[in-house]
Amino acid sequence: MSDIRSFQDHISFIRSQTEKGLSKIPLRPNLTNYFYEPIKYVLKGKGKRLRPILVHLTGQIYNAHPDELMKAGIAVELLHNFSLVHDDIMDNDSKRHGQPSVHNKWDTSTAILAGDGLFALAQLALVGLKPVAYQRFNEVALEVCEGQGIDKEYENNTSITMNEYIQMIGKKTASFLGLCAELGGLLGSASQKESNNLFQFGYNLGLAFQIKDDYLEIFGDEKIMGKSLGSDLDEQKQTVMTITARKKDFDNWSKFIQKKNNLSQYKDYFETSGIKKEVENLIESHVSKALSGLDLISKNRSNHLSEYAKLILNRDY
Amino acid sequence: MSDIRSFQDHISFIRSQTEKGLSKIPLRPNLTNYFYEPIKYVLKGKGKRLRPILVHLTGQIYNAHPDELMKAGIAVELLHNFSLVHDDIMDNDSKRHGQPSVHNKWDTSTAILAGDGLFALAQLALVGLKPVAYQRFNEVALEVCEGQGIDKEYENNTSITMNEYIQMIGKKTASFLGLCAELGGLLGSASQKESNNLFQFGYNLGLAFQIKDDYLEIFGDEKIMGKSLGSDLDEQKQTVMTITARKKDFDNWSKFIQKKNNLSQYKDYFETSGIKKEVENLIESHVSKALSGLDLISKNRSNHLSEYAKLILNRDY
Repeated sequence: MSDIRSFQDHISFIRSQTEKGLSKIPLRPNLTNYFYEPIKYVLKGKGKRLRPILVHLTGQIYNAHPDELMKAGIAVELLHNFSLVHDDIMDNDSKRHGQPSVHNKWDTSTAILAGDGLFALAQLALVGLKPVAYQRFNEVALEVCEGQGIDKEYENNTSITMNEYIQMIGKKTASFLGLCAELGGLLGSASQKESNNLFQFGYNLGLAFQIKDDYLEIFGDEKIMGKSLGSDLDEQKQTVMTITARKKDFDNWSKFIQKKNNLSQYKDYFETSGIKKEVENLIESHVSKALSGLDLISKNRSNHLSEYAKLILNRDY
Repeated sequence: MSDIRSFQDHISFIRSQTEKGLSKIPLRPNLTNYFYEPIKYVLKGKGKRLRPILVHLTGQIYNAHPDELMKAGIAVELLHNFSLVHDDIMDNDSKRHGQPSVHNKWDTSTAILAGDGLFALAQLALVGLKPVAYQRFNEVALEVCEGQGIDKEYENNTSITMNEYIQMIGKKTASFLGLCAELGGLLGSASQKESNNLFQFGYNLGLAFQIKDDYLEIFGDEKIMGKSLGSDLDEQKQTVMTITARKKDFDNWSKFIQKKNNLSQYKDYFETSGIKKEVENLIESHVSKALSGLDLISKNRSNHLSEYAKLILNRDY
């Protein structure tokens, strides 16, 4: 119990330091409000800062310098927000973190430019870190774009298999959490093998994270999530829920989705058919896989990473 | 004469090497056509590759390694194309380099993602160069975004002064040419002072370049330019032509633009009122200013930069 309390205190501290770091990024709205106002708006949003937290947690295990972890943490948070702002345009999402998305509050042009600015600011946050951090950061940024491309291709494609889906979210979401875990190690004393291991830890956790995202899109609480749910289904996106449903009972699912269902009908379907439970198990299995890959780190040093994994498993928004 | 010939041969060689470099960037359309096909399409477009050429020309003066110049050249060309793809969405431009712009050929989402990918690829092209190259690259990328923000703010604002306009294109266009000139020096043996000087050279040339751009939007040849002209005027953008016209004879210009004029009527107005000539002089004065700033480099070594400046001055597309 006291361990968990101290973990909560620990990540609260990282979170508040990250907020402080984000608020110190030199933005110059006087120069151009059009460009900086939406960026300020995005950075003040209620993000969970899960990515910087992971950078710090692995970095602390490998004794990385706190200032360097702060730079990398700010950079991944900016990269994350860049991709949210642009994805919200592409996916036509009108809300983000409980407030209107940028393209909704302003317009598409404003949101494109704000995203570009966040991407450039992310690169600048990395200045001073060793070149390999910069290289891995951008290799993964490219993978995230690839994942988004595959995601767009999969829209309306009802023949996507679970393997294809896992590959897609592997690029779009999991590689990013992999990067965060890896960066901490790279900036510290982790060997190449240890850094790869950290990447794998973040990657598997990232798979669990995205599957949970799809799950919460149906079974989350709209108030806590700060957005309307079920929009993935309206947009005919392929999610872990629809793919599992199709795989489990193709005929029944095909009949079901021909009707105009509301969210509670979807919930009923997923619950009574056992799909809800199946997806819950899938999330747990990826978290377990992530944890079992931490064998290079001694138990007492990997403690915070286990707590972090539980955070991902149990998050409700 | 033979000097000019050898300069032409020289930049043709740089251009063909750049094309070769661009064609070697590992793109994986098999993985995701949605993401890579538009990127391939953009890179095959008929760009003039003026930015990589400038990187090579200054780098050669300061004995930078050709491989490093190639990396920086590819990076600036990718950054340039990133900004074109996104600006074309924001400015609603349907053609680019004689072919449909990405958002026109595909759609807005595709173009947003393609631009993001080009930005990430630009960062990856820099891997292996000294950190200051990476830093300056992204400082200027941010400035280009700021410039685009100011440009959007200035739309429909008919009180913009020439100074404000020069500041805006300074960020949006001139700082980018400044970066190209500076990068060659940074990667070679240029001192801090010499690198700053190179930046100023590129910056002043960039001002001339953008003013010429506005000029060609009216007085260019549609066939050579590969796009329909006069669209800036339809979009109510503030350009050097409209600002000069307003400044020269406010009442006359105000009366003129209240009418629905076609391109040839605009041409007539700018010609008979002396505005065409005035803008031509402005272009020349910025090119002269650029050249006079090259005094740290001996005449025989700066020869190619003078030829490059003439290229900017005399370009017809």
